[in-house]
Amino acid sequence: MPTYTPPVRDTRFVLDHVVGLDRYSNLPGFEAATPDVVDAVLEEGGRFVAEVLFPLNQVGDREGCVRHPDGSVTTPTGFKAAYRQFVESGWATLGNQPEYGGQGMPHVVSTAFQEYMISSNMAFAMYPGLTHGAIAALVAKGTPEQKAMYLPRLVSGEWGGTMNLTEPQCGTDLGLIRTRAEPNGDGSYAITGTKIFISSGEHDLTDNIIHLVLAKTPGAPDSSKGISLFVVPKVIVNEDGSLGDRNPVTCGSIEHKMGIHGNSTCLMNYDGATGWLVGEEMKGLAAMFIMMNAARLGVGLQGLGVAETAYQNAVAYARDRRQGRALTGAAEPGQGADTLFVHPDVRRMLMQMKALTEGLRALCLWGALQVDLEHMGVTEEERQLAGDLIGLLTPVIKGYGTDMGYAIATDAQQVYGGHGYVAEWGMEQYVRDARIAMIYEGTNGIQAMDLVGRKLMQNGGRAAQSMLKMVADEIAAGKADPATADVAARLEKSLSDLQAASMWFMANGLQNPNHVGAGAVPYMHLMGIVAVGYMWLRMASAAARLKMVGEGDAAFLDAKLVTARFYAERILPETGSLRRKIEGGADAVMALPPEMFLAA
Amino acid sequence: MPTYTPPVRDTRFVLDHVVGLDRYSNLPGFEAATPDVVDAVLEEGGRFVAEVLFPLNQVGDREGCVRHPDGSVTTPTGFKAAYRQFVESGWATLGNQPEYGGQGMPHVVSTAFQEYMISSNMAFAMYPGLTHGAIAALVAKGTPEQKAMYLPRLVSGEWGGTMNLTEPQCGTDLGLIRTRAEPNGDGSYAITGTKIFISSGEHDLTDNIIHLVLAKTPGAPDSSKGISLFVVPKVIVNEDGSLGDRNPVTCGSIEHKMGIHGNSTCLMNYDGATGWLVGEEMKGLAAMFIMMNAARLGVGLQGLGVAETAYQNAVAYARDRRQGRALTGAAEPGQGADTLFVHPDVRRMLMQMKALTEGLRALCLWGALQVDLEHMGVTEEERQLAGDLIGLLTPVIKGYGTDMGYAIATDAQQVYGGHGYVAEWGMEQYVRDARIAMIYEGTNGIQAMDLVGRKLMQNGGRAAQSMLKMVADEIAAGKADPATADVAARLEKSLSDLQAASMWFMANGLQNPNHVGAGAVPYMHLMGIVAVGYMWLRMASAAARLKMVGEGDAAFLDAKLVTARFYAERILPETGSLRRKIEGGADAVMALPPEMFLAA
Repeated sequence: MPTYTPPVRDTRFVLDHVVGLDRYSNLPGFEAATPDVVDAVLEEGGRFVAEVLFPLNQVGDREGCVRHPDGSVTTPTGFKAAYRQFVESGWATLGNQPEYGGQGMPHVVSTAFQEYMISSNMAFAMYPGLTHGAIAALVAKGTPEQKAMYLPRLVSGEWGGTMNLTEPQCGTDLGLIRTRAEPNGDGSYAITGTKIFISSGEHDLTDNIIHLVLAKTPGAPDSSKGISLFVVPKVIVNEDGSLGDRNPVTCGSIEHKMGIHGNSTCLMNYDGATGWLVGEEMKGLAAMFIMMNAARLGVGLQGLGVAETAYQNAVAYARDRRQGRALTGAAEPGQGADTLFVHPDVRRMLMQMKALTEGLRALCLWGALQVDLEHMGVTEEERQLAGDLIGLLTPVIKGYGTDMGYAIATDAQQVYGGHGYVAEWGMEQYVRDARIAMIYEGTNGIQAMDLVGRKLMQNGGRAAQSMLKMVADEIAAGKADPATADVAARLEKSLSDLQAASMWFMANGLQNPNHVGAGAVPYMHLMGIVAVGYMWLRMASAAARLKMVGEGDAAFLDAKLVTARFYAERILPETGSLRRKIEGGADAVMALPPEMFLAA
Repeated sequence: MPTYTPPVRDTRFVLDHVVGLDRYSNLPGFEAATPDVVDAVLEEGGRFVAEVLFPLNQVGDREGCVRHPDGSVTTPTGFKAAYRQFVESGWATLGNQPEYGGQGMPHVVSTAFQEYMISSNMAFAMYPGLTHGAIAALVAKGTPEQKAMYLPRLVSGEWGGTMNLTEPQCGTDLGLIRTRAEPNGDGSYAITGTKIFISSGEHDLTDNIIHLVLAKTPGAPDSSKGISLFVVPKVIVNEDGSLGDRNPVTCGSIEHKMGIHGNSTCLMNYDGATGWLVGEEMKGLAAMFIMMNAARLGVGLQGLGVAETAYQNAVAYARDRRQGRALTGAAEPGQGADTLFVHPDVRRMLMQMKALTEGLRALCLWGALQVDLEHMGVTEEERQLAGDLIGLLTPVIKGYGTDMGYAIATDAQQVYGGHGYVAEWGMEQYVRDARIAMIYEGTNGIQAMDLVGRKLMQNGGRAAQSMLKMVADEIAAGKADPATADVAARLEKSLSDLQAASMWFMANGLQNPNHVGAGAVPYMHLMGIVAVGYMWLRMASAAARLKMVGEGDAAFLDAKLVTARFYAERILPETGSLRRKIEGGADAVMALPPEMFLAA
């Protein structure tokens, strides 16, 4: 049976020494996030998810969700009671807007809690996760009446929310949407169509579910410019706030998926369901991206969250399981065999998992801070910089973060040998759960195209320039200290690979945009490796500084320095190959006619 | 629903132009493998597996195997009838020994057929696959009486065979085996113990199952030097060949696994079961390795086999699914959207899958030829060279081949987007099935240690020298032809990375063997990339040669040249990073004490 312990000490280290939480106490929300409060959130929140949600993780996988003939859906045993506890103990409102009853904690703090929740039970965490997307859309685009009607009970967790984008013929290409919205004449619309892959689409956790739905109004063009966003409650809300008629939006079936069985992934039928426009007609794409950008950071966090639990268990197994002898001679001659820990290849996998999970944690929390600063930074300059950086790195956190989450879960399973393949040990579930994060909210290929096709060139490349400068400045500082000089020097090499690849795109992209498309995923990985490397340099610098002044736990700080070195020696070298792949361009990638792919 | 078409044209190309089957017609078995016969095997065998086994692949995954209270096991619907057809139509005997009723086809030809069988239904293919391991052990080490008693009915497929190595406390480290073999006084032994993860351990496909079992005789040392190999039939065979008493060897449970549900992976209880020594007492490890080496090549082939089917379906989906527009402008303006094929990142994934599957096919078939030549080569020199090469490359084919098999299956699933995550589409099964091949018959970490710790240094590095020379000779020839010069030049760069990494091991391994262990997996990948690159250079050279003389299908040959170029530009660059990782050594890998891995 797997176990999970929230990595509070590491989170605290990142918040204090990478994010530098204390520097922002002048900002709204941050003033309440005193060290004591943050400690309480991490400790109490961590305890809650580990004790209440984690024990339901394997149950959820085994049982899945059940759809009944009337279209209602039952979540796995224990989910409903746990959700009630989650709401009653106030965890649902942590980072939500105070004007609607939320606690208004900074996003960076609630992100730390969300990581723990995902680590405990990814499928469960998706129910409140989707609600956050609905809240974001309504806060940004809802009318005052819509906000008053829906937000308090979404913010409290009393109701759930969903995002309804995908249709059978329409995934990435939202211009292909066929769901229709016909005006009813009273300001409402009749929504008709079929949506698929709707996470948390129907369930028994809440009395109402507020669906945010993309649809087309009559005469709208057949492109993404023709779509509008609607709010469609499962149960119509009366003007006095009481629940009225059941809206004709029903779960037609539940998908049989590879993983995240505890979340109900529904096909939703809209049969003239009553909905109301959110934001302007035919401006649905912009409204959708508000949900989507938040969701993408949340999915990046899923990569980290699942990886962390898988990693923790691989460490425990490697310390417990005895098999073979150290290459340098028996480490424990009195035992029948040494532990897996003595084997350099097992150690290599564990160090790789450690370097990536801790690095991704720093990147996710630093990214969450940028979300806070984008909205609340004191100066326009500060807000713009934060917005630029998180805009640029959102596809990287999502794409690189989830590719690594899957790789880490796979390596953790590998440490278990044959036992990793058997369900009872729990490791194979992490691989299956982690896999979806590479696909939904835009496949990682789409993330890479968002990065190279949009974010990189926006505003004359301003965001990329800011990022490159930020990393270069840290390298300059890191090279001045012998404790971090080698890590900084190796990061400098990787940064030059990133710069060269960017230049190559600029030099070749106009002539043939396929040159950019063919290098998009390697480039996303290249930037991900540099971004996590930047975090490792910052963590190493902080560790060296703390050691010098004699603060903190020396063993913990030494571990940071060793892991930074591992990252520099064992992961940064990948940037050279990625650069060469990008510089290979599109010619060989695109040369073969479709009919020649199969050699049969 | 997935489809599968055996890639006969590509197999034929490899057999003719990489393996060069016609050059070996003087060897036993090869004289019968005329082009017509080989064509018939590929065409008819391919049709059989595609029509009979492939339709049972998803059924097997869905139903799994069922153990009944009496310990008997039922395979999924259709497996038993298909197995009977498999035996009756003679496919079971294809590559088996003529002296026991086999058809004696060269291993290289039966390997081609086995690939198709795995592609059709990996879980099914494991039943006859394990039988081959049992045959190999008995042919090499069995007494004349044992051979006469068991081999004809194993060779025909009338009976099945298994390999029983693993125990709960004992995976890789066979010295930890606790199963005991007590002499009965009549030449037989009473075998008592528990074995786990026994593929095909109990099933309803055959009347008898011949277990090959590792156990310890009284007083044997507690190390791998103390183990012996026994043959333990499920049903005792009387001297007249009839079936006698049921031996007390029973299936205690079936594992709930991530994939290969159609194969019964059993916990086997031996309760004083009667067994007979195979080979000498306490020489079980050597006998086991005879089964194991054959099994490892078979597992490498599983990586390719599953990848091929996943790839074929990804191509079909990409040609069918319309989503978005080409970056260079709408490719089919009359349609609502272009096919996935226009997108460079989808194309990149498909080309990567194509380059790896075709390259691995060439490597697996070339490797199978070395197995033939090791036994039947005309000169001692030829036999030694073949034995050296396949000994060196067996861990590479297993380890690199299955790591790539999983990566390809994952990429194929990715092409499907959300549909790839849903069971009905069939793609997620390929990922789950492919995953086990990285674990069993020695994890890929163990393969890498076998490569760098044993094979690389054996006989003064003779095998590695031969391989490097073989590749260097091909590069020299390839550079002389403009059609292959670029591929050859890029392979030369990768070969120099391989040489440098080998030198680094030699320079640093004696001082600290952990330096070798910490680089073992990157080195295995480096050699795998070079080995497959060597195959691509040979395929490109053959294609260029055929084009020049106007033989063969020009479009097919052009596709080979394009794919070779893709491999050179997009996969060979990885060797530079792998070399740098290896040269990072063990220091950062081993520095952290076990208790510092968790940051919680």
